[in-house]
Parts: sequence; C-alpha cells; structure tokens
Amino acid sequence: MTQFPPPLSGSAQDETPDLRPKFNADGLIAAIAQDAGSGDVLMMAWMNADALAATLATRRATYWSRSRGELWVKGETSGHTQEVVEVRIDCDQDAVLLKVKQAGGACHTGRASCFYRIVPFDGSALSHDQDMG
Amino acid sequence: MTQFPPPLSGSAQDETPDLRPKFNADGLIAAIAQDAGSGDVLMMAWMNADALAATLATRRATYWSRSRGELWVKGETSGHTQEVVEVRIDCDQDAVLLKVKQAGGACHTGRASCFYRIVPFDGSALSHDQDMG
Repeated sequence: MTQFPPPLSGSAQDETPDLRPKFNADGLIAAIAQDAGSGDVLMMAWMNADALAATLATRRATYWSRSRGELWVKGETSGHTQEVVEVRIDCDQDAVLLKVKQAGGACHTGRASCFYRIVPFDGSALSHDQDMG
Repeated sequence: MTQFPPPLSGSAQDETPDLRPKFNADGLIAAIAQDAGSGDVLMMAWMNADALAATLATRRATYWSRSRGELWVKGETSGHTQEVVEVRIDCDQDAVLLKVKQAGGACHTGRASCFYRIVPFDGSALSHDQDMG
C-alpha cells in the first residue's frame, strides 16, 4: 500500500508543497476527470493511495472501484482510457482534478460524459444534453 | 428535510427522467462547481437534500458544511457567491455539476479556484498555477 505523508492542519495544508492527500474514513479521495481539450467535466470517481500513485506513475487514470473493491484502470476492458495530461489537487487535498485525453465515451452508458442530464430549476423532468444523447 | 424519490437500480437510474439523488451514508452527494464562462473547475463540496433543493430554488450555490454541520450558502459571509446557471447530475446520480458565475475567488484562500496546485508526475514538490498565486 502506497504511503503518503499525513495531512497538515488548516492553512499549512493549503500551502504545503508536499502531496499530503486527505483520505476519508474509507481511505479515499474524490477524483474529477475533465477533458483536457474541451474543458467538459467527464466523471467523478474515487481513488485510494494506490490508485493515486498508479495514476501519477502511469499517466493513465486509475480509480478505486467501490462496487468491486479493487483498483480500476479506466478503460482496461472498454478501451475508453484516460491519458492524464495534468493532475491538480485542491486546497485541503481531499480532491484531485485530472485533465485527460479521453478515448471513447467516459461514461459506462457510452456517452461522452457522465453529466449528460440537466436538472431544471423548476422541478420538471431531467432533460438530456442533445450532443450526448 | 427535503424528500426526493429514492434511487433506482442499474440502468434504470442512468435513464430515469426523475431527479433521484443517491445520497451516501452521511446523506450527502458530491457537488462540483465549474466556471460557466472559462470552464475552470473551481471547487468540490457536498450537498444534502436541503442544500440541493435550496440551490435549485434560489439559483445560488448552497452546500452542506461538514465541518460546521450546517447549510452553507456559498459567499454568504465572504461575498464570493456562485450564481448557478445550470445544474447537471451524473449517471448514477451521486454527483452534481454546477455551472456558475463566480463572484470573487471560489477558494477560501482567496484564489480563483481551489485547484491551484499541480501535482508533478515525478513526485517532486507541488507547483502553483501562476495565474492563481
């Protein structure tokens, strides 16, 4: 299991030059994948320490599958891989942002992004992004 | 407490026209805020049912503060509000994407985005996005 140094407190965590991920009680941090070209947000998933380390080492997005309880190299079976161009981490280091070159659709439904449905403000039925089906 | 209909299983959840948020064990879903103009991902936070309902009703981003244990109208004290232009929800409905017009910096550090640090692939020190300080 990969070990990272522990998170610091308050503003020290915001300003540290060290990667000190703040994993939750399940040992996970949130990971947002964004298309490096279009800027579209593609999906949100989770990483444990090994997934984060593997993503950095291989530049291929690797998550932790909470349903399967195992490392999940995105696209390993579907071919819909994510080549990681840049990794960012947020102020308190409990979320990472991956800028990726996405092969095929990011969503398991086959759509380009998991965020294909729009929630109307008035409580009416969800609508679909017409470009994503 | 706002009540939404319960999530469905598998592909029924992916295709339902109903807003059926899948809250975690703490009653929360992830919320990603993205700048509606630039496409920059600004922050990730959490929403309970009331926060999601308030965001839709007021078009002002409202989260659940896990540290304070209360609803958090973004910018209520700082003035750094988020006017919500569009809300999207992902396939399994455990994450929402807000497209916002951000007043001031989204990050509590004063920076434009919480994702101001880049994680190098080689394990060296985090670098800063020069435009964000």
